[in-house]
Amino acid sequence: MPDSTRFMVGLAALALLLGPASVTGALVPGSSGHGPYARVFYPNNLPPPPDRVGFPQTWTHAYGNPRHDSAYPVPAAAPAWLKNGVTWRYPEARAWPLSRHEPYGAKVYGERLALATMTQFYGNALGVSAVDGIIYAESDDQFAYALNARTGRLIWRTSPVGNTFMGNPLVSGHIVYLTVGNVGFNFSNVQRYSQKTAARGAGVSYNGVYALDKTTGKLLWHFGTMGATMPTPAIAANRLFIETGSGDIYAINAKTGRQIWIRRAGGIANMSDPAVYHGHVYVALSVIPYLYCLSAQNGHIVWKATIRHATKPGLGDVSPAVAHGVVVMDAVGVVPSHGGRTTLTTIVRAYNAEDGRVLWSHTMGPGPKPPAFKGGVPMIHKNTVYIGTPVNNIYEAYNLHTGRLLWTWHIPKAGAAGAGRAPATYYDHKLFISTGPRLFVLNARTGRVIGQKYLGGRFGIVNPVIVGGTIYLDNSWDWVMALPVAAVVGHKPAHRQVSP
Amino acid sequence: MPDSTRFMVGLAALALLLGPASVTGALVPGSSGHGPYARVFYPNNLPPPPDRVGFPQTWTHAYGNPRHDSAYPVPAAAPAWLKNGVTWRYPEARAWPLSRHEPYGAKVYGERLALATMTQFYGNALGVSAVDGIIYAESDDQFAYALNARTGRLIWRTSPVGNTFMGNPLVSGHIVYLTVGNVGFNFSNVQRYSQKTAARGAGVSYNGVYALDKTTGKLLWHFGTMGATMPTPAIAANRLFIETGSGDIYAINAKTGRQIWIRRAGGIANMSDPAVYHGHVYVALSVIPYLYCLSAQNGHIVWKATIRHATKPGLGDVSPAVAHGVVVMDAVGVVPSHGGRTTLTTIVRAYNAEDGRVLWSHTMGPGPKPPAFKGGVPMIHKNTVYIGTPVNNIYEAYNLHTGRLLWTWHIPKAGAAGAGRAPATYYDHKLFISTGPRLFVLNARTGRVIGQKYLGGRFGIVNPVIVGGTIYLDNSWDWVMALPVAAVVGHKPAHRQVSP
Repeated sequence: MPDSTRFMVGLAALALLLGPASVTGALVPGSSGHGPYARVFYPNNLPPPPDRVGFPQTWTHAYGNPRHDSAYPVPAAAPAWLKNGVTWRYPEARAWPLSRHEPYGAKVYGERLALATMTQFYGNALGVSAVDGIIYAESDDQFAYALNARTGRLIWRTSPVGNTFMGNPLVSGHIVYLTVGNVGFNFSNVQRYSQKTAARGAGVSYNGVYALDKTTGKLLWHFGTMGATMPTPAIAANRLFIETGSGDIYAINAKTGRQIWIRRAGGIANMSDPAVYHGHVYVALSVIPYLYCLSAQNGHIVWKATIRHATKPGLGDVSPAVAHGVVVMDAVGVVPSHGGRTTLTTIVRAYNAEDGRVLWSHTMGPGPKPPAFKGGVPMIHKNTVYIGTPVNNIYEAYNLHTGRLLWTWHIPKAGAAGAGRAPATYYDHKLFISTGPRLFVLNARTGRVIGQKYLGGRFGIVNPVIVGGTIYLDNSWDWVMALPVAAVVGHKPAHRQVSP
Repeated sequence: MPDSTRFMVGLAALALLLGPASVTGALVPGSSGHGPYARVFYPNNLPPPPDRVGFPQTWTHAYGNPRHDSAYPVPAAAPAWLKNGVTWRYPEARAWPLSRHEPYGAKVYGERLALATMTQFYGNALGVSAVDGIIYAESDDQFAYALNARTGRLIWRTSPVGNTFMGNPLVSGHIVYLTVGNVGFNFSNVQRYSQKTAARGAGVSYNGVYALDKTTGKLLWHFGTMGATMPTPAIAANRLFIETGSGDIYAINAKTGRQIWIRRAGGIANMSDPAVYHGHVYVALSVIPYLYCLSAQNGHIVWKATIRHATKPGLGDVSPAVAHGVVVMDAVGVVPSHGGRTTLTTIVRAYNAEDGRVLWSHTMGPGPKPPAFKGGVPMIHKNTVYIGTPVNNIYEAYNLHTGRLLWTWHIPKAGAAGAGRAPATYYDHKLFISTGPRLFVLNARTGRVIGQKYLGGRFGIVNPVIVGGTIYLDNSWDWVMALPVAAVVGHKPAHRQVSP
């Protein structure tokens, strides 16, 4: 091919990109043509209608709902594959062998930092979404994926923006929403930190929400924000609620991406995902550390609360869980020191969702400072709240209304980064907890381990998503996987239990 | 394909990855198999031996040599294509149409910040390297590229690590060296900044140097570092000299990647690239702001110097140029304020390379604070130093030994981010300067414009690399391009000149 022809072919490929430059246009660098970031779409791998039954139709919050409980039982009349469960594993773009016990880079950075780095830059920070027979995953490898829930085959893969996708894909109508932003601060914002005006993610690639066609992965529009949008938004009544690394909270039209209101609260959103409940939006930010209850209608602050002694990331890392008129929040706080290493504890607090009145408060006990995400994400099932913490590697169950402690479970083999960050999933009187390289099953009433399986890699704040007989997970080693519930419940632990 | 087969195929693909985990192993997440980050290699596009003549055999420094002058004339007997020049353009993975005057994201971030963001996260921050008929480019799109210099066709593309490649590829022996690290700080290091112990890039993906086979792009080894390795290293006598975001300076064996010495200087390396000259290594760091002269043998400090009133990135952004026993450095400094916006000036200083004695010093005049990279990279040709600055958008020429000002050129249409960061290239009594979307040609003796061409996109600290009759460039819009020298020299400016 002569030089001039090659040049013309290059231009022709790019001509496909030309279009409106507005945020509602689909022109983004690298997403078209045949380069490595181009979207791929395999319509043959879409699930046929019979393979879509039994699945949720929408996914409105991180961890599926404001309670953070991602279990979807199916009726006895459901097809056998759905009831019995399926097994597959899908390697994403930066997949690291599951046989590797150590994260990539452990020799240079130490296991503790390397675990956080893999979670934040290579793998899946949050769990998958399961909608209409499709498993959606966002990865910090800069791609989002749609897989056939039954077969594990790739339906589409896309990278509409060169940044980490740290969220749990939301799905509503024909749209899947991706969350964009990474943990970095640029130098200007580092210098601003002492004035509490630093914006996480500003000038660090591109931030915001990218809305795709859920069937094809095609970009429909994006809503750009100055700060990182590490938290997964929440959807209610056709509004998407977003919080960012510059302390801004937005409501946008979920269909069009047009802004409805903005509340400049200040501080920094880390990994705390908002919850919408009865017309209110619950948002937690750090640095200027508050849990806010906002009107979903107009963004006005209904009430706000803080947790004294919370560390800097403290409140901004934990996603509040809401149910039965109660908001449950936690934050790691500093224990007054007697010299030497910093000692932390996890403070759990329940609020009346309407007026912010504190209903009860607990501290979960002291431990050393864990790396990266430092809290535990609460999960509410009926009148019980389940919550873990990597500070001292425990899970506890409390009565939602009284705060009475029901049981404590000590997580075995917690590892260098600590264990217990993710919400549990309640299914068939059991709790499913993914932490470290393992999936545990507990008797939900007693907290005793009744099954476990070593799956490899690392689960950060990833929860098990259960649909019928299958558990869907993704992890920091950049894999998405499916395994039958029965394979874990009936699985004998390979080592001595440390549970009570 | 049944589920179990798919699972086995997945494992089989990953089995290719299994190997030694040491830094000399080639096992890295995502680089093998068939995913989007897998290396591609087209041996048919390698240049035949006749197309390799006239090119440099090695590339030992950013901008080609310690003088930063990247021109390589060819003899009159050279083949016609080499003498007359070629034309091609290659779109990299995040290519943005060159017809777009505004960077991606300008509507959300403003043009000024969006220009810096594209340069730092999507496009090419530094220029290309031209060795043995191959053009090598590192891109912030997370890939490195090798292109046939005559045809522009892709020889290989690889992404051995998920991070921005902000350097100019070095080539020595059979190895090409990539520089890894981005501008971000993680939250722990943001909190450490006030103590001057913040490490840029620590915990922000993976940092260091990745060594590839220059012909195939295959990963040979990597040398991991805690801080970002944004600067391009320098090579001399089989040693690679590296500086990092944690203020560490290393000498490693260029063939094996084994560490020879480390000097923990402190502070932060930004985009200042080291220079090696007569057994000394010249390194400039910021925050703890010094220009160091180290012994290449053992890393001992021979002398160090600072520039008073330099801004925080100041010294750490500018690559010292060295020739004829003189080191030329500059840094943007703060002009004492009379209220209102921060006013900066660019301080140029020449040192005796042996003992650090100041030979002369100049200030280039006041202007507002430019975004991102704030200095101008000096270039030395014979006894003249050429230097620009985006503070007030000028280029100046000085006598290298006396500091006498020879001329000043005011860059027209400097744009939102300012112009004049990159070193000029001296070729055939002319200066070639790429800045903003344009390539300018100046009479080197007078500083008068004698040609210019609008190429589109944006050139940050990218210099024109000239081999025979062709100018090779890459840019922030994520393109690599070749054009004949004659196409610029003879090109009539499309607008009125503002030059003196």
